[in-house]
Amino acid sequence: MKNKNVVTISGGTGGFTLLSGLKKYPINISAIVSMADDGGSTGVLRDELGVLPPGDVRQCLLSLSDSTETLRDLLNYRFQEGGLKGHNFGNLLLSALEKINGSFSKGVDEAAKILNVKGRVIPVSNEDMRLCIKLKNKKVLNGEKNLDHNKEIDAVGIDHIFLKNKVAANPEALKAIKQADYIVIGPGDLYGSVLPNLLVNGIAEAIKKSKAKVIYNCNLTNKNGQTSAFDVDDYVEIINGYIGKDRINFVTYNTGKPADKLVEKYSKEEGKNFVVQFDVDKNSKRKFKLIKSDFISNHELPGYQKSRVSVRSKSYIRHDSEKLAKLIMMIFELGEYENITKEII
Amino acid sequence: MKNKNVVTISGGTGGFTLLSGLKKYPINISAIVSMADDGGSTGVLRDELGVLPPGDVRQCLLSLSDSTETLRDLLNYRFQEGGLKGHNFGNLLLSALEKINGSFSKGVDEAAKILNVKGRVIPVSNEDMRLCIKLKNKKVLNGEKNLDHNKEIDAVGIDHIFLKNKVAANPEALKAIKQADYIVIGPGDLYGSVLPNLLVNGIAEAIKKSKAKVIYNCNLTNKNGQTSAFDVDDYVEIINGYIGKDRINFVTYNTGKPADKLVEKYSKEEGKNFVVQFDVDKNSKRKFKLIKSDFISNHELPGYQKSRVSVRSKSYIRHDSEKLAKLIMMIFELGEYENITKEII
Repeated sequence: MKNKNVVTISGGTGGFTLLSGLKKYPINISAIVSMADDGGSTGVLRDELGVLPPGDVRQCLLSLSDSTETLRDLLNYRFQEGGLKGHNFGNLLLSALEKINGSFSKGVDEAAKILNVKGRVIPVSNEDMRLCIKLKNKKVLNGEKNLDHNKEIDAVGIDHIFLKNKVAANPEALKAIKQADYIVIGPGDLYGSVLPNLLVNGIAEAIKKSKAKVIYNCNLTNKNGQTSAFDVDDYVEIINGYIGKDRINFVTYNTGKPADKLVEKYSKEEGKNFVVQFDVDKNSKRKFKLIKSDFISNHELPGYQKSRVSVRSKSYIRHDSEKLAKLIMMIFELGEYENITKEII
Repeated sequence: MKNKNVVTISGGTGGFTLLSGLKKYPINISAIVSMADDGGSTGVLRDELGVLPPGDVRQCLLSLSDSTETLRDLLNYRFQEGGLKGHNFGNLLLSALEKINGSFSKGVDEAAKILNVKGRVIPVSNEDMRLCIKLKNKKVLNGEKNLDHNKEIDAVGIDHIFLKNKVAANPEALKAIKQADYIVIGPGDLYGSVLPNLLVNGIAEAIKKSKAKVIYNCNLTNKNGQTSAFDVDDYVEIINGYIGKDRINFVTYNTGKPADKLVEKYSKEEGKNFVVQFDVDKNSKRKFKLIKSDFISNHELPGYQKSRVSVRSKSYIRHDSEKLAKLIMMIFELGEYENITKEII
């Protein structure tokens, strides 16, 4: 049987988790990555060098890489002093390769060779994309970096996001979507990682037209102000709003219980309805199949670096890489049969 | 027959030329590199990050590397804008690896693995070494960078150089010298590349004691103020002053004629006695064997980058990599016989 073509659209910790798990299976992965990041080292490089944002791509490359630990440590190394302070070595690598190769995509392909990457990492666009955030009070914030710990967003809430200028999709991304057997969306922040990809001209339309089945890995927790008290249907409705009515075929949903300490921490930071709920009675017409399982991670995520600290299970509620990948592979198997039960709950 | 152990002590364009040629032969190369560089990107990294100077090591690694052209281009890439302006990607790589591995030497070994380097690149010291230049008017200039295009040096001349603080030799450098069959000194600037290595505690003494034969690749041209109107015996005398009377066994000397245009250029910049001469009648007691040959290069030196431009044969009088390596290999063969003629002139 031919290996399945799998397109992923995710980002941040969620993307790293997803790809680290999936790379162990015999499938052809094309990881589409948003180019809207403009914070930290990435933001400085965009502004000063005029390059595309390397941060998320670096994480994707590392998650799919078969390279030595030394090379991973090197790519995650962040300079601590002088004019280089805060710059991540992997970001500098990608920016240098972009300059040498004359295009970000070609630079990413070269980096993938150096890092012995399994699958492909595809920037969603080769153009300069800038995210704008419209709040419910009609104010517009310029730049994705405003999504992080923003008290105004916490208080007012997001109405929607849009791109400052229209940007064209990377033809390689459109090709991968067209050839996909499965499109896996999430895990990842709705406004920070998932939706920016769908705002790029042609991407949502390509998903709409594609024969691929769509799996959505629903978030475990909500973000205050951004997705306050969202349930599964809220997430699905917003995403389907871009890619077509009932376009999502499968939703994975966590039933595992996070540690008490984390529950306390998240309650304070994200509000008491921070756990994403599923209300079976809310909607009798939903078409997606819900796959419930315990996805909670109990250990560290090796090789991942967020800002200046490694992500440890002790401080974040997040997906377990292996559990998630295993479940997705199971859905790929299920998908082979036409007559499976309508809902697996 | 066992491969010969060859230690090189050179630097800059000359070192790159020497190593690029030698790496093609079945010998064990240990390239000892001065840590006195403090100009340009290297100087900024030393000052801001407190690292050892990566520039010369980068060039050595590249000259001995079997890596792809892409990787070489990447290591030579110099950022052109913003806070990274002037920094060379390879320098950043070495500085990051030093920080991650906790020692410059270990970082160099890791870089050598990434670059698939043939032989070893050994920093002459793991300590912070700073060069001081004493002029003939007794003034002292602090920093090797003062050697470049310095009008005061041009006018007054150098008396000698010394290190600001005593630094210990890298034990790996001492070990390589002890185990060497041949020590190859030069080509390289006398004050900028060759002598700084001999100022490090233990290095000159180790060469003195070593059973290795010493080959000195004499410079093709003199530098105004530094080695104005020097002849072969002047160079040999100064170097032997550090490593022992008559310690140099072989001297290679160029008889090729540089292009007229270059003669004109060098006459202006380095004075009319810029060609290093050999006066056979000057000294009847010299013990070294002089090997005369045409070493002049007529083509580019691939992969080498000096400051912001590639070195092209059209603008510099320099050794040809292949001719030089071939001649040195011939000396290795000659050295096997005890009864060769005393002087090959």
